[in-house]
Amino acid sequence: MTSNPRVVFAERPAYGELPAVGKHLIFDSSPTIDLDNVPLNGGFLTKTLILSPEPAMRERMRDPSSVSYTTTFVVGAPLIGFGIVVVLRSEKDDVKAGEYMYGMTPWEAYTVQPYVEGRVEFKSEEWAPETFDMDSLALRVVPSLKDAGLPLTTHASILGTPGLTAFVGFEGLVEAKAGSTIFVSSGASGVGSMVIQLAKLKGMKVIASAGSDAKVEYMRSLGADFPFNYKKQSYESALAQHGPINVFWDNVGGEVLDAALVALVPRSRAIICGVIAIDNAPPTERYRLKNTDLILKKRLELRGFIVPDLIPQFIGRFVVEVPMLVAQGKLRSVECVTEGIENAPQALIDTLKGREAPGKPVVVVAKE
Amino acid sequence: MTSNPRVVFAERPAYGELPAVGKHLIFDSSPTIDLDNVPLNGGFLTKTLILSPEPAMRERMRDPSSVSYTTTFVVGAPLIGFGIVVVLRSEKDDVKAGEYMYGMTPWEAYTVQPYVEGRVEFKSEEWAPETFDMDSLALRVVPSLKDAGLPLTTHASILGTPGLTAFVGFEGLVEAKAGSTIFVSSGASGVGSMVIQLAKLKGMKVIASAGSDAKVEYMRSLGADFPFNYKKQSYESALAQHGPINVFWDNVGGEVLDAALVALVPRSRAIICGVIAIDNAPPTERYRLKNTDLILKKRLELRGFIVPDLIPQFIGRFVVEVPMLVAQGKLRSVECVTEGIENAPQALIDTLKGREAPGKPVVVVAKE
Repeated sequence: MTSNPRVVFAERPAYGELPAVGKHLIFDSSPTIDLDNVPLNGGFLTKTLILSPEPAMRERMRDPSSVSYTTTFVVGAPLIGFGIVVVLRSEKDDVKAGEYMYGMTPWEAYTVQPYVEGRVEFKSEEWAPETFDMDSLALRVVPSLKDAGLPLTTHASILGTPGLTAFVGFEGLVEAKAGSTIFVSSGASGVGSMVIQLAKLKGMKVIASAGSDAKVEYMRSLGADFPFNYKKQSYESALAQHGPINVFWDNVGGEVLDAALVALVPRSRAIICGVIAIDNAPPTERYRLKNTDLILKKRLELRGFIVPDLIPQFIGRFVVEVPMLVAQGKLRSVECVTEGIENAPQALIDTLKGREAPGKPVVVVAKE
Repeated sequence: MTSNPRVVFAERPAYGELPAVGKHLIFDSSPTIDLDNVPLNGGFLTKTLILSPEPAMRERMRDPSSVSYTTTFVVGAPLIGFGIVVVLRSEKDDVKAGEYMYGMTPWEAYTVQPYVEGRVEFKSEEWAPETFDMDSLALRVVPSLKDAGLPLTTHASILGTPGLTAFVGFEGLVEAKAGSTIFVSSGASGVGSMVIQLAKLKGMKVIASAGSDAKVEYMRSLGADFPFNYKKQSYESALAQHGPINVFWDNVGGEVLDAALVALVPRSRAIICGVIAIDNAPPTERYRLKNTDLILKKRLELRGFIVPDLIPQFIGRFVVEVPMLVAQGKLRSVECVTEGIENAPQALIDTLKGREAPGKPVVVVAKE
C-alpha cells in the first residue's frame, strides 16, 4: 500500500473569515491506496503533480445558501481545484498511461478518476440561476512542455485558468487602444501579471498595484510603467499621480474600486474580475463604496465577469495564440512554488490573504 | 415698465447640502423691463409660461472644480432650466411672435434671447473631458398642443426632457422582454412614470418605489404591478417579496441600489439614471454600498447614462412615436403644478428632497 495524503475541507469558514489550517483545512496523511490493484471502474488512476491554489476557491467554501456564480465544496471531502496530474493506469479509451492532464482534481496524492466523493452532484434547479458547476471543468490531456523548455507548472499559470481568465476578459472587455491607460489591481497575481503583459503587447500604459516591493519589481519586469505598493502609497495618491485611467481591471474590490471610480475618465469601464478584499473581510468590516455617484456623473460601466462567460467566444484564439506568444518569449509565466502537499493548506491561505513573493502560486506535490 | 421678477442663484450649497430659499435661491421682484422698447440685438423677446424644476439642476449648483457630466450655474445670475416660453417680439428670421418654444431659459418672467448673463461661456478645455454644456440645449419651437387637447406643460413632462430621458434610456439600455421584471426607483417622477408606462407597453412586470401613498396610487394608475412606499416597506423586503428583477432603473442611488444588487438576477443590468439620494446627503452621511461583491458574483453590469449620450440614436423615434402614443392615450403625462414664479425656489427644493404629490413638477409663471 502507498500513502495517499489529502487536504480535507473540514468546516466552512464564516462569512468573511479567512480559513485556518487545522480547522477549516485539514491535512490528513492517513489514507493509503493500492496503486496496482485499486479498481478503476472504467476510469483511470492519476498521480497529482501540481496543485493550483486560487482566490476563487474561497467562494466555493461559502454556505451553499449564499448566491454566487459557482457551486460549493463538500464538507468532509478533499478540496478540489485546478491541478496537473499524470496518468498511471487507465481503462478509458481516450486516456493513456503516461499522459499529462490539467483540470479539476482533488487535493490528494493519487486519485481514481473521474473523482466523485467531493464533487457536487449538480442539479441546476437546486442552485441559483446561472450557477456554474465548477467541477465540470474536467481533466483534459495537455502536452508535457519539455520540448518547449517550459515547466509543467505553466499549465497551472499562463496556459491554465489564470491565463485564460486574463485573455478572454482582455479580448472581450478591455477594448485596448495603444497609448491609453489601464490600471490593474493585484498585478503580480496569475491573472494580473497576464493582463499587464497583454496590455503592453497592445501598447497601453500600465499602472499596477500589489502589496510588496518584490511584487512591484516583478510587475516592472513584466513591463508595467507605474507599478506601486499600495501598502506604501495609497491608491488615491498613485492614481492621482499616474492617472487618469481609461480602463480598470479589478482583481481585488473595495477600496481600490472606490479610488478607481475617481480616476476613470468619463464613459470608461471597470472590469470586475475579483473581489478578494471583500470576501476576506467580516461583514462588519467590509469596505463600503462611497463614490458610486460617479457611475452616473461619468457615465461609467461596471462589469462583473467570470471566465466561463467568455470562453466560447475566445477559447479558439487562446489555445493557438498564447502558447505561440509564450514560445516567442513575448509572454512570461512566473510561478511561486511551494513544495509538498502537506504545505498546500497554508499555500492556499497565503494566496487568499496575499503573500510577499510574486508569481502564480503552485504547489508541487510530486516531481514528474 | 413691466415687473420682471427672477430667481437668482445666490450662493453654492455645500457638498450634499439641500439648497435653501433666501440663501442659495433668492426670489428678486425688483427688476423691470420695457417690453415694447428693450433692444433685441437680432434676437427675440420671450415671456416665460412654464418652468420645470428638475433633480439634475442640483448638479449644476456644485462647485465647478467637482467633476461631473454638466457645466455649472453662474453665481449671481438667474437659475437656468428647461422651460416653455412664448415669443413676444423677434428680430430673428426663424423665430416668430406668438410661437411657443421649449428649452433652456432663465428663471425670470421675460427674457431677451439668446440669454447670456447666467450662461457659462463654454470652453471645453476648461472642463473635465466629456463635460456637457447644458446651456447648449437651446429653445426650439414647439406646437401649442391646444388642438390635441393637451396642456402646454406636456412639453415639460412626457414630451420634454423627462420623457426623452426615459425613452432613450429605455430603448437603448433596458432590452425589454415581455414577462420579465423591471424595478423603477422614484417611479412617480417625470422620468420614472414614463419608464413604468414604457415597460408596461412591452408587457413587463413592474415593481416601483416612491415616498408617499399618493405616489403609490399614481404608479398603480400608470400600470405598475407592485408599487410600494419605501417609507413604509423597506426596499429589501419589497424586492424579496416581488423580485427577483431582470433590470433595475435607478433614479435615486445609495440604499436602493444596494438592495437591487441583491434582487437582480445573474447577468442583468442596473441603469444608473439618477443619484439624488447621494447628492442630497452631506459627505459623512452618504450611503455607502456594501453589496458590491455581487457585481462579480452575479456578473452584473452597472451603467451610468445621461440623456445626451443616447439622443443621436433615438431622437428620431422619440419625436414621432411618443406624441402618437400620447395622442392614442397609451402614454399619460401628469404634472404637479405650482403657481407663480415667487414659489419656484421652494418647488425646486421640494423636487430635490421629494414631495408627497405625484407627477412631474412644473411651475406656471404665466397663463398663455
